[in-house]
Amino acid sequence: MLFFTQCFGAVLDLIHLRFQHYKAKRVFSAAGQLVCVVNPTHSLKYAPTRCAAVQTSVEQAVLPPCHHHEAVHDPQLVPCTCPLFSCPWEGHLEVVVSHLRQTHRINILQGAEIVFLATDMHLPAPTDWIIMHSCLGHQFLLVLRKQEKYEGHPQFFATMMLIGTPTQADNFTYRLELNRNQRRLKWEATPRSVLECVDSVISDGDCLVLNTSLAQLFSDNGSLAIGIAITTSKVHNAENEM
Amino acid sequence: MLFFTQCFGAVLDLIHLRFQHYKAKRVFSAAGQLVCVVNPTHSLKYAPTRCAAVQTSVEQAVLPPCHHHEAVHDPQLVPCTCPLFSCPWEGHLEVVVSHLRQTHRINILQGAEIVFLATDMHLPAPTDWIIMHSCLGHQFLLVLRKQEKYEGHPQFFATMMLIGTPTQADNFTYRLELNRNQRRLKWEATPRSVLECVDSVISDGDCLVLNTSLAQLFSDNGSLAIGIAITTSKVHNAENEM
Repeated sequence: MLFFTQCFGAVLDLIHLRFQHYKAKRVFSAAGQLVCVVNPTHSLKYAPTRCAAVQTSVEQAVLPPCHHHEAVHDPQLVPCTCPLFSCPWEGHLEVVVSHLRQTHRINILQGAEIVFLATDMHLPAPTDWIIMHSCLGHQFLLVLRKQEKYEGHPQFFATMMLIGTPTQADNFTYRLELNRNQRRLKWEATPRSVLECVDSVISDGDCLVLNTSLAQLFSDNGSLAIGIAITTSKVHNAENEM
Repeated sequence: MLFFTQCFGAVLDLIHLRFQHYKAKRVFSAAGQLVCVVNPTHSLKYAPTRCAAVQTSVEQAVLPPCHHHEAVHDPQLVPCTCPLFSCPWEGHLEVVVSHLRQTHRINILQGAEIVFLATDMHLPAPTDWIIMHSCLGHQFLLVLRKQEKYEGHPQFFATMMLIGTPTQADNFTYRLELNRNQRRLKWEATPRSVLECVDSVISDGDCLVLNTSLAQLFSDNGSLAIGIAITTSKVHNAENEM
């Protein structure tokens, strides 16, 4: 009986996934785009203190570029690369991807252009929606966060980070695009490195910011579809051409 | 002596204008774009009650489309088309342009693509930056407003409105673009009609919304350059092709 119930649950999940996929396809009708349904991760606690330590370590490790190894503490040990609020994990940059896959079961997707479909946008803050995106020989992390910067007024913050160093991140440009109801909002920027800590990027507001009202305008039945594209930035292209 | 002082002031203004113009050109380097320097209008009082009356009149006047003249009150008399907070003016849709030019000295510019350079972004809320834009045979109004929706947290709201009816407005698409520091933010939407009242568009958040931190990232020395483009919307194009 238990086996039957579990099978039935799995079938329902598949139908739900298919339905969500269809909805996202309808929003972004361009053929060949990969749609990824991303479920929320509700964060039980908020740990702003984690970032203060990281900021210091990033300054030490990053400010003299290409001299990371001269810092006094072990610069290979990254304390803030897991962007989930409640995760106290620390580790080397090289194992961030496997930590996110194994511990947090975050999906990794291939392709230059994908659609990120965040479900259950109504959930209370703080909530994260996260996927990894493998593209142009690197892994990127897309973080959508619902957070109350001003009490009682949740906002959505979306940013893309490279699982790599700030110098590597400078070679790329990412684009996030919302498109619904005859409205279109596009944000283009250079990704930050995960070494810079997602919490500080969001508190600086240097990302795509949506008020609840705008998020509702772009949502379809509680789900928000974000088109993602990553390209090499012009500086990098110019260098290649030379 | 007074004459000399006034002349000197005028020359200084011209130099300042030339400098601002140069700055905007630097931001939007596309050749042939018209740059308009827009000074702020600080609003002394906030008149939210004005909009309640307007909403009612718009519903009466607009909901049965193409039957405006069946409403009981004079539908030609528009109470909320002057978007300035403190202006109690009422008038016919046809004379809104001359009211804005003569009473508020709002500039009107020609051209499909222009750059709106809002100065003195640091001024306290509520503040408006407004120009009119003549394009594709119609007049549009660009309103940038600094307003505190949440006390102590001013935000910037930018929207484009057609000085015409909602049915006419549906034929157009406007685009606002910010571009600076390797970041780009684009908002595209159908303009609202001035009959719908700019105050309610902003309180609904159905416009380009910038937090103070994002506004600072896109500003150059206290001025924000917004690229504006207006096109006929696809539906309208399809109709023309048929």
